[in-house]
Amino acid sequence: MTAPSPSAAAALLSALKFDRDGLVAAIAQQHDTGEVLMLAWMSREAVDETLATGHVTYFSRSRGKLWRKGETSGQTQRLVELRVDCDGDAVLLLVDQVGAACHTGTRSCFFRALRGGGLERIAEPIVDPKALYGAEA
Amino acid sequence: MTAPSPSAAAALLSALKFDRDGLVAAIAQQHDTGEVLMLAWMSREAVDETLATGHVTYFSRSRGKLWRKGETSGQTQRLVELRVDCDGDAVLLLVDQVGAACHTGTRSCFFRALRGGGLERIAEPIVDPKALYGAEA
Repeated sequence: MTAPSPSAAAALLSALKFDRDGLVAAIAQQHDTGEVLMLAWMSREAVDETLATGHVTYFSRSRGKLWRKGETSGQTQRLVELRVDCDGDAVLLLVDQVGAACHTGTRSCFFRALRGGGLERIAEPIVDPKALYGAEA
Repeated sequence: MTAPSPSAAAALLSALKFDRDGLVAAIAQQHDTGEVLMLAWMSREAVDETLATGHVTYFSRSRGKLWRKGETSGQTQRLVELRVDCDGDAVLLLVDQVGAACHTGTRSCFFRALRGGGLERIAEPIVDPKALYGAEA
């Protein structure tokens, strides 16, 4: 999407109800296939940056700072549309995901399903996480 | 889905990382269309009850108790499959939603989208919320 006008961005921000940590939940869904890719969190600053750049920025709770998705790994998310839920504490990001959304190299973070025998892996990595993050992975 | 075996349920629960409030985030997605319906929260007890009954039970943060989805409104969610994300703090519920997931009577809670002019309603209610909740709505 192109960057919204200042008034449209302001309307969005006034509809969002950030929690006690200043965050809203953000679901990323591949815009054309409907696949749910991941759940993460956005601060007000992350929302601002996402709208300004057209690429998704989250807030990393573990690192306590903005997380420009794909900045290290190259697995970026281009924002196609942003939707807000009824009570404003969650957003649905329709995105175009490059490669793997998950840091494990799997397309979606939801790669385990409860089946008869327990939790089963239902998708394999499509990229090698070592190639994404080097020695960190 | 049929109720999982005790060992399968135990494998799931051991993979979940409940937060400081004892909750995991739960995304409900219509299993056949891919539509993201809502985001809510589950306690360990809510997960147990969902698996035992095959119908989704959440934990209502505002009411501080279990929330058997559709108990009042009739808009139930039958669980088709439960998936877990890479770090265990979110689940993806593939469900078969009766009627409207949203308390406003709209199919999905994500019925507002950021467009050029601001936040626009992109879906109308499919049921009258007054009919769902009577005088409460």
